[in-house]
Amino acid sequence: MNIRDTSSQTMREIQDRISTALAEVNGAPFSSDNWSYDGKSGGGESRIFKSGELIESGGVNFSAIEGDQLPESALAALDVVDPGGFFATGVSIVIHPHNPFVPTIHMNVRYFESDNGTWWFGGGIDLTPYYPDEPQAVEFHRVMKSTCDRFDASWYPRFKKQCDEYFYLPHRNETRGIGGIFYDHHKPDPVVGLEFSQAVGEAFLEAWLPIAAANRDKKWTPEQRRFQLLRRGRYVEFNLLFDRGTRFGIQSGGRTESILMSLPSEANWAYDWRPEPGSPEDLLLTQFLKPRDWLKLD
Amino acid sequence: MNIRDTSSQTMREIQDRISTALAEVNGAPFSSDNWSYDGKSGGGESRIFKSGELIESGGVNFSAIEGDQLPESALAALDVVDPGGFFATGVSIVIHPHNPFVPTIHMNVRYFESDNGTWWFGGGIDLTPYYPDEPQAVEFHRVMKSTCDRFDASWYPRFKKQCDEYFYLPHRNETRGIGGIFYDHHKPDPVVGLEFSQAVGEAFLEAWLPIAAANRDKKWTPEQRRFQLLRRGRYVEFNLLFDRGTRFGIQSGGRTESILMSLPSEANWAYDWRPEPGSPEDLLLTQFLKPRDWLKLD
Repeated sequence: MNIRDTSSQTMREIQDRISTALAEVNGAPFSSDNWSYDGKSGGGESRIFKSGELIESGGVNFSAIEGDQLPESALAALDVVDPGGFFATGVSIVIHPHNPFVPTIHMNVRYFESDNGTWWFGGGIDLTPYYPDEPQAVEFHRVMKSTCDRFDASWYPRFKKQCDEYFYLPHRNETRGIGGIFYDHHKPDPVVGLEFSQAVGEAFLEAWLPIAAANRDKKWTPEQRRFQLLRRGRYVEFNLLFDRGTRFGIQSGGRTESILMSLPSEANWAYDWRPEPGSPEDLLLTQFLKPRDWLKLD
Repeated sequence: MNIRDTSSQTMREIQDRISTALAEVNGAPFSSDNWSYDGKSGGGESRIFKSGELIESGGVNFSAIEGDQLPESALAALDVVDPGGFFATGVSIVIHPHNPFVPTIHMNVRYFESDNGTWWFGGGIDLTPYYPDEPQAVEFHRVMKSTCDRFDASWYPRFKKQCDEYFYLPHRNETRGIGGIFYDHHKPDPVVGLEFSQAVGEAFLEAWLPIAAANRDKKWTPEQRRFQLLRRGRYVEFNLLFDRGTRFGIQSGGRTESILMSLPSEANWAYDWRPEPGSPEDLLLTQFLKPRDWLKLD
């Protein structure tokens, strides 16, 4: 098969399936923005969600681009030596809901190859709750594990650990959320790689839609909204300070609006803010934003 | 003289002078937070401004720290080869006012030296208005120039250019604000270096207090507040994606709350937001956030 065409076709399908499902639960259509890449060829489509019933901001991005050369800073971000010309395709999703009891979710699946023969798959899903909910966290990880197990029983433990390590804010000594799975430089058979990308896309819907349905109508207080906005500040910190995808995108001349769609519509910061000991906010920080064996596998 | 003691003493005085003046115009005292450095020795004091009459958030930080080794990522951020043990002292200020007609202002003065004999001064002031005001911009740059000219007529043109280059968001093709002065790896006689640091501190007050006084009582609309919050999103982008001080601080195990005090209390993002052509918001983007010869020196 022509892997470039097949992979970008698969990514398109994943985007379409998920954005259609999200528009339905959001009670409002997405808006679509097609764009061209400034490099050799290619481009993408951003499907943007704004203030519907469920979603405050977010999007489902598809892209497939070809370039002649990666900038040096992008090579560092990707952790590769100069591969010459490259091709990259993927779907990237961040959804920030209105309700503080509905977690923010992020998903990404991508395929990268270079003219010198280097290639790999990457991706993952991770959940960022604002309020602690242990059964929710366990169920989320159960979906991640069962998705991985259909391919290889060693993947979930490995990808779960990588997720905890990747989505970590050293300056805050906390994880971004409760983790999930994260993989990179992953080289199964390309057919399997694409099937796994599709499975990750399905896992996004299987994991998040029930969580959203169960929590979207809960009432919240101004203090809970305030906590959500402070936590979103941390989300911004991670994405701009550490996220390789964001930094790679910005540094390789990617499309700014599509890359920074991951940032929330509103974020707050407050000097040395601390939750009341024993409060749900405190519980989130002390018990949920640390790597944890949610499925008690060890 | 013992340059380490003298420089940290000078920095303390600059912090004290400015924070006292700001508390007065803000109609509210700052709160003070002393902290210790996790490295070899030293620490600092953060003077925090919260929601007074003028200031929405901000602070005046002093620090003087000694360490045995800089982490690799910090070396890259500082643009030096490993200097072994080091000493660094400085004052760092960011003030985000409530009123969208009062610009955000940033100032920094610092002295760095290493056990291997490397040393330099660095610093600068730059102004980030939300609404375009040409006489204000010209007067701000006039203060910067006259401050520099008392030392060396070549400094303003050089430091002004460096400021435009440094406070630039390539992914937005815009400067952070209207610039000012920025210098780094600066090596005048150490006595002159400290005098210039003091002069920069005075220039902060001379430049910003009249601007604040002239604009702090102007009425603003929700749309103007909204624009201010979107612009603050750009401020966050610059600081977390590009600012060397922020990235160096985070990566060298600096004190997170003091470093990230530069972030505003509230920031917004909106997908592909564009101002109405010909509006003041449009004028800011097209005419003010590009390097400009404000004093018509060329």
